[in-house]
Amino acid sequence: MGTRKPYQLVSREWKQEDTTFAVNGVTIGKDLMLVAGPCAVENREQIFTISEYLAKKNIKFLRGGAYKPRTSPYSFQGLKTEGLQLLREAGDKYGLAVVSEIMSIDKIDELVSYADILQVGTRNMQNYPLLKALGKCGKPILLKRGMSSTIEEWLLAAEYIMSSGNERVILCERGIRTFETAARNTLDLNAVPILRRLTHLPVIVDPSHATGKRWMVAPMSYAGVAAGADGIMVEVHPKPEEAWSDGEQSLTLPMFSRLAGELRTIHAVVSPLHANPSEASGR
Amino acid sequence: MGTRKPYQLVSREWKQEDTTFAVNGVTIGKDLMLVAGPCAVENREQIFTISEYLAKKNIKFLRGGAYKPRTSPYSFQGLKTEGLQLLREAGDKYGLAVVSEIMSIDKIDELVSYADILQVGTRNMQNYPLLKALGKCGKPILLKRGMSSTIEEWLLAAEYIMSSGNERVILCERGIRTFETAARNTLDLNAVPILRRLTHLPVIVDPSHATGKRWMVAPMSYAGVAAGADGIMVEVHPKPEEAWSDGEQSLTLPMFSRLAGELRTIHAVVSPLHANPSEASGR
Amino acid sequence: MGTRKPYQLVSREWKQEDTTFAVNGVTIGKDLMLVAGPCAVENREQIFTISEYLAKKNIKFLRGGAYKPRTSPYSFQGLKTEGLQLLREAGDKYGLAVVSEIMSIDKIDELVSYADILQVGTRNMQNYPLLKALGKCGKPILLKRGMSSTIEEWLLAAEYIMSSGNERVILCERGIRTFETAARNTLDLNAVPILRRLTHLPVIVDPSHATGKRWMVAPMSYAGVAAGADGIMVEVHPKPEEAWSDGEQSLTLPMFSRLAGELRTIHAVVSPLHANPSEASGR
Amino acid sequence: MGTRKPYQLVSREWKQEDTTFAVNGVTIGKDLMLVAGPCAVENREQIFTISEYLAKKNIKFLRGGAYKPRTSPYSFQGLKTEGLQLLREAGDKYGLAVVSEIMSIDKIDELVSYADILQVGTRNMQNYPLLKALGKCGKPILLKRGMSSTIEEWLLAAEYIMSSGNERVILCERGIRTFETAARNTLDLNAVPILRRLTHLPVIVDPSHATGKRWMVAPMSYAGVAAGADGIMVEVHPKPEEAWSDGEQSLTLPMFSRLAGELRTIHAVVSPLHANPSEASGR
Repeated sequence: MGTRKPYQLVSREWKQEDTTFAVNGVTIGKDLMLVAGPCAVENREQIFTISEYLAKKNIKFLRGGAYKPRTSPYSFQGLKTEGLQLLREAGDKYGLAVVSEIMSIDKIDELVSYADILQVGTRNMQNYPLLKALGKCGKPILLKRGMSSTIEEWLLAAEYIMSSGNERVILCERGIRTFETAARNTLDLNAVPILRRLTHLPVIVDPSHATGKRWMVAPMSYAGVAAGADGIMVEVHPKPEEAWSDGEQSLTLPMFSRLAGELRTIHAVVSPLHANPSEASGR
Repeated sequence: MGTRKPYQLVSREWKQEDTTFAVNGVTIGKDLMLVAGPCAVENREQIFTISEYLAKKNIKFLRGGAYKPRTSPYSFQGLKTEGLQLLREAGDKYGLAVVSEIMSIDKIDELVSYADILQVGTRNMQNYPLLKALGKCGKPILLKRGMSSTIEEWLLAAEYIMSSGNERVILCERGIRTFETAARNTLDLNAVPILRRLTHLPVIVDPSHATGKRWMVAPMSYAGVAAGADGIMVEVHPKPEEAWSDGEQSLTLPMFSRLAGELRTIHAVVSPLHANPSEASGR
Repeated sequence: MGTRKPYQLVSREWKQEDTTFAVNGVTIGKDLMLVAGPCAVENREQIFTISEYLAKKNIKFLRGGAYKPRTSPYSFQGLKTEGLQLLREAGDKYGLAVVSEIMSIDKIDELVSYADILQVGTRNMQNYPLLKALGKCGKPILLKRGMSSTIEEWLLAAEYIMSSGNERVILCERGIRTFETAARNTLDLNAVPILRRLTHLPVIVDPSHATGKRWMVAPMSYAGVAAGADGIMVEVHPKPEEAWSDGEQSLTLPMFSRLAGELRTIHAVVSPLHANPSEASGR
Repeated sequence: MGTRKPYQLVSREWKQEDTTFAVNGVTIGKDLMLVAGPCAVENREQIFTISEYLAKKNIKFLRGGAYKPRTSPYSFQGLKTEGLQLLREAGDKYGLAVVSEIMSIDKIDELVSYADILQVGTRNMQNYPLLKALGKCGKPILLKRGMSSTIEEWLLAAEYIMSSGNERVILCERGIRTFETAARNTLDLNAVPILRRLTHLPVIVDPSHATGKRWMVAPMSYAGVAAGADGIMVEVHPKPEEAWSDGEQSLTLPMFSRLAGELRTIHAVVSPLHANPSEASGR
């Protein structure tokens, strides 16, 4: 009775073809999904400056934290409802889909009313009551990998959501905890081909949290797309040196603009290779 | 603003003397705290058989899972309210304090009404909304270490509870995730002297989850007490081979009885050493 | 006196421009370096078949183990001198530079007489007497990362070689040991941009040992080149299913041929990006 | 052919009874083996002061590094032959068996002529040519665990020594590398009961390297003995604050004297429990 059954609904055996779904005109799981925004929503000017810039560069997804899971109770915990309102306003004005984090069941209704995609953060990947409730929320879920979770545990977390009724789950690799301290975490790009083989769900990569360093974001984004990821999510800030959190790893807006172009170029080169793998890369 | 402040209320600098508090006649943080019970409450017979046995052996704490965080959505998720009712009934009949796990904010009232100590499991150690809410629940909290959490993150999790108003927090080392696969996890007994130096809170050790193997529970319990832990929590089952979960690591009742006696003997030998450390072991 | 000084000779502060050096017509550190060959030399037919194929595809480096560090004393330990002779013969006939592993000081003279590049394996990265002796051997050294070594320890190992007189050191990322067991090791591509920032030495990636799975080699090779690596080293075998070791992770010759072409294409796209980084990826 | 065979000679299946052997009047594998000495031999006064003290306290084993594997080529590398001569002189004068580290095959004859037990350090645990050569050296080997080696790899390293002809191998747990940075390494005491079950070889614990902190040495030594270890090896120094290396983790001589007494007391209490395990701790 206590035996763990393997995941089922998330598996390639259950469903061979890639899961794809459209959000704000982007077919996630097929088109390159680029998500950008600040670690935390700080004020109207910050979020509108970023949003205007993203819209000009034809980016379709704005991320921003309103409820922030902080290691210390004394750190800034987010603007909460006010932050969500600002994200929604900016999203509506500039045609951006909004991605924001959900931390507890009692905030699901609020998040659903403001955001287009609900993000489950690394610390909540095994918050099973939350996952079950998100299975019924009606919005796509961006499920970050627990920073010390195995790929199997991650897929089982997605299975919690799917088996509760929500098939629109995006997996996001964001670095794992290892002995190495030269970067914040170790970006586990092995996970990308492994997930492509095991699951039909879309997979994106977050190089900002995985590295914690601005100058690593571009090369690790290239690597993520080259490994076969369906998208990249990065932190940007108009003035990273003044950011309330994660300034060290935030790109400036011009840096992000250049990166977006580079990733589109690399994606155009590698996506045919992934679409038609030799046995070497194949499923 | 985003800078992480160090923990404060949990620290030895803030409060030099050990935190102690009485539950069911045991002064936690001073007396040896022995907690035993099944992984999951299964039925009345199981929980009453165990409870009667514990009472005879002068054990004061009964643990048992009613809400179970399982890696797979298809595994047994616990008897829920029924399980809590059985724990309370058995606890009342046999004079045992009840320890059971809380997984989400909306169940706090229920847990408070049935249990004497609320346990936060390894997967919820960084569930900050839950920790904040537990700061106001009025019951002692047994805070298990996240299986990949640093000691600093663990203390900051305790700080979330204390800064929300609850000073009765017990820290429980339960093994960390490493590269070694010979046991379920790696019991990190280094954490015991480190915590004794950094915090005034009581520290106990769970060798059952840390090892996953019945034959390792006794030696690692000895080691935990020798390292200076204030208590040991172990899984027991009348018929481990029929347990719905964690049977591999559950002690039989006679095994536990013998172990309890051994731990009392070892504790009597080592507690004077810890009470009067040379600089070698000192604070 | 026991204080650890930081590395010096290997650092970018000491020498700003990239270290490059020519081996068999390839400017390592500048041109894309592709190395292929079997885990272990098994017999003449095997090594000549591979060599002929590599030469046709314009590959310039043949790898092959003659002395094999095996976890068990009962596993095949390599053809030793006979293996080196076969590598040299094949290398001479087909115009390939030979890369082979050195395991102890007393074999350095032999390796120097047969191979063009001496490889230090992951288990010997901190074999300091060996590293010092290799500083005087006169051949380029391919220094694999210890599977649990930090980047700082790795650079200090390279410093042992350089401070003993040998400036031609190639660093090879080959996966680190983590909690994840879905692949053999976790390929740490973070290491590529970190090394490019900290050191002037060339950096290559070995996706075969890092993954242990044939179908992961192509995507992780793409990712390695995209992250900025100067080359890729992979295991190939004419009949992987008959290989004496590492058959699971060996590419067939046609798979490798396709991969080599793909990597040249990706390298042509990404090398200008790395040559002219925005601050985002920069040094 | 490349299939890894399991270890055999080191296993309990191969030989049920504990391996024991006498060195300097101590039956290793049965009596409590206490080893102390400085990280590095520094000069005559240091090593003779320590030796005289150890002899008075009835300690039978002196450790000291003459050849030191240092992470940086610029750190003190040991007094080499001179250090070995001092160890031998002091050992002879005060009736102590000498334990010192062997780093390469070409020094085995020298080590054999000066030391009574040859130590293989954590960085050389998988230096297979060295292990094979030590199988023929005629002296007991103290085989430290590789800081990132699994227990299986460790046993296979011991198998290399045994299968080359040397049955006197002592295993020494010295901490493993994990994500936790509060101490130098994580002392893996799980390894003690696991090894007792899998192998007949003696097992000791080194809490000095595992913790890197003087004030952790005593509690982790207690824990090691309680877990069932056959001995403890610690670093001591007459003036730790002046030590050339590892001063932070070295005990003063009076601290060690107190600790030795405490460990003898704990050993007397726990060794009967381990000799007669319930199924809970049993083999």
